[in-house]
Amino acid sequence: MGANTTVTVDFGERSYPIVIGTGLLDGGFDLSEYVKGSDCLIVSNDTVANLYLDRLLPNLAGRDASSISLPDGEAHKTMATMQTILDELARTGAGRDTTIVALGGGVIGDIAGFAAACYMRGVSFIQVPTSLLAQVDSSVGGKTGVNHEKGKNLIGAFHQPQVVMIDTQTLGTLPDREIKAGLAEVIKYGAICDLQFMAWLEDNVQALLDKEPEALAYAIQRSCELKAEIVAADEREAGRRALLNFGHTFGHAIEHCLGYGEWLHGEAVAAGMVMAAELSGIDINEVSRLRNLIARAGLPTAPPQISAEDLLAAMTRDKKVKRNEMHFVLLNQLGDAYLTSEYDEARLHDICAASS
Amino acid sequence: MGANTTVTVDFGERSYPIVIGTGLLDGGFDLSEYVKGSDCLIVSNDTVANLYLDRLLPNLAGRDASSISLPDGEAHKTMATMQTILDELARTGAGRDTTIVALGGGVIGDIAGFAAACYMRGVSFIQVPTSLLAQVDSSVGGKTGVNHEKGKNLIGAFHQPQVVMIDTQTLGTLPDREIKAGLAEVIKYGAICDLQFMAWLEDNVQALLDKEPEALAYAIQRSCELKAEIVAADEREAGRRALLNFGHTFGHAIEHCLGYGEWLHGEAVAAGMVMAAELSGIDINEVSRLRNLIARAGLPTAPPQISAEDLLAAMTRDKKVKRNEMHFVLLNQLGDAYLTSEYDEARLHDICAASS
Repeated sequence: MGANTTVTVDFGERSYPIVIGTGLLDGGFDLSEYVKGSDCLIVSNDTVANLYLDRLLPNLAGRDASSISLPDGEAHKTMATMQTILDELARTGAGRDTTIVALGGGVIGDIAGFAAACYMRGVSFIQVPTSLLAQVDSSVGGKTGVNHEKGKNLIGAFHQPQVVMIDTQTLGTLPDREIKAGLAEVIKYGAICDLQFMAWLEDNVQALLDKEPEALAYAIQRSCELKAEIVAADEREAGRRALLNFGHTFGHAIEHCLGYGEWLHGEAVAAGMVMAAELSGIDINEVSRLRNLIARAGLPTAPPQISAEDLLAAMTRDKKVKRNEMHFVLLNQLGDAYLTSEYDEARLHDICAASS
Repeated sequence: MGANTTVTVDFGERSYPIVIGTGLLDGGFDLSEYVKGSDCLIVSNDTVANLYLDRLLPNLAGRDASSISLPDGEAHKTMATMQTILDELARTGAGRDTTIVALGGGVIGDIAGFAAACYMRGVSFIQVPTSLLAQVDSSVGGKTGVNHEKGKNLIGAFHQPQVVMIDTQTLGTLPDREIKAGLAEVIKYGAICDLQFMAWLEDNVQALLDKEPEALAYAIQRSCELKAEIVAADEREAGRRALLNFGHTFGHAIEHCLGYGEWLHGEAVAAGMVMAAELSGIDINEVSRLRNLIARAGLPTAPPQISAEDLLAAMTRDKKVKRNEMHFVLLNQLGDAYLTSEYDEARLHDICAASS
């Protein structure tokens, strides 16, 4: 077991630690000091609960911990599922000092966090992310929410956790495809704001695919550091936080056209990052460098067979929701991204047409 | 038309004005500067919309205003009703720069505010309260939410509005019983923290019942000033804000025992304040003074026929939700309240038994 690393997310009085290590489960890290009252409700799904629920309980020693299992998958990230958590809290008479513990991937964290935001106008919340995507992205920064049939994450709240506990050992049971999908968001941090990290990823991508613990721990740590810095400066995405959406305008359009779940979110973002780099009009060698890293991570570098019309329509649909121009996160160069509504329309069309 | 009065609720960057006046509707006060984007959704119910929707539109000149009508009454203050607002926003493709305008009493404001808190993780929100209770209490301070079958306001968010616009002319159409119920919360402010205001109320209670505009305007202004001061110091009710619950532990128990809607909230709080004053063990003349003012406002000074057992059980039920001791807001003397979990149990029993 290596030493733990702590990354602090600085929100003043609401600051919280992200603790990263191997062997934090089984009581290796004491979560009970973050549980204000006497009781907590662990929210998970059957798959994750079977693997890790019993191993999480020693971390909550001395607290009255009960649990609830949600149906698995993005399709169940709905108000109805969120309501089952609220019903359970109300049924057991949970008070304002209760704590919700999310044990699982991004879907579990988003739903459980939103329930924590709404119950009695906000109760405490702990994140124990078990997927790479959740560890490097969704568990950090306080975005919680559920999907609406008209759009992903359309309903939700900003609600920061008390602590995020990342045991990298949980990645041992994660399917390879989900490791790769998580790496897409890791590569994203390098591409938008840290060229040195990008170079490190180029040197270590195979070690990450081989799930070497030290490489994974560093990739997670650096991702959390970069995300923590960005969200602390812009909690509610009024500006800089939008850079985290690099590759996501294209990625969401791909997911929408294929139907959610066909490609994993990280896979769609991977292809979307290459498309966004192409739209940026930067040096072709820079685009190639990003494309090569994404390919070596076992991720798609181009969208699947979708007509340019469908892809553009899906992006325009995103635009309609925003009621203003289409926005893209583009690159000045690798490691330096910016948000803009100005882009080369002809090039955008060519990029979308090249996929079909 | 008199001059408008503005009370500022100080939340730093999120500070907002409460504008109080007669004739603010019909374009008498420009709300459009508080509507960030091009569009807004007015949330109301049929009764209020029939009276005031057309008169509110000139206040939103230059903005694309649509409206939705919710079913009337506390029984519809549910997640399902809140969802109809979210569905409407999603259906019309409302963006992050949309604004929700609550036109109505406390129920409308609470539901609409919660929808504003949740849509896209928070959009702008304007309160146009039309009942006295909403004008002096629920529209100020940012508490939003809906009921759960296990408890009132169990699900919600703190979400501050951009502006509160109070046109006292709307009280002209309010039933007398609701004017009286609103006065209960007005008297509460005097009892907990402003003896001078209490004396003013003793001098002006008849003018208020007669709906004299200047008296109403001052009562609303002073109530908003006192509430604004308390909530600005304690937005999330970690301490002092709890004083606003004076009379409410008893009041909620009365409402619960009778069934919600039998007595109005303000009526139950009125009786509850007398009971809380009795429990405080203060000079009997002080209790009489409060009882007399409440009686002169046409409000009940004792609970209806409920057995002591039922009343105490309902309060204990409240306690169970809080998972700790029963709390009361008591009086050191009139105009000086405090929160405590220490009280005379025998006296509590006597007070409850006296009602049956």
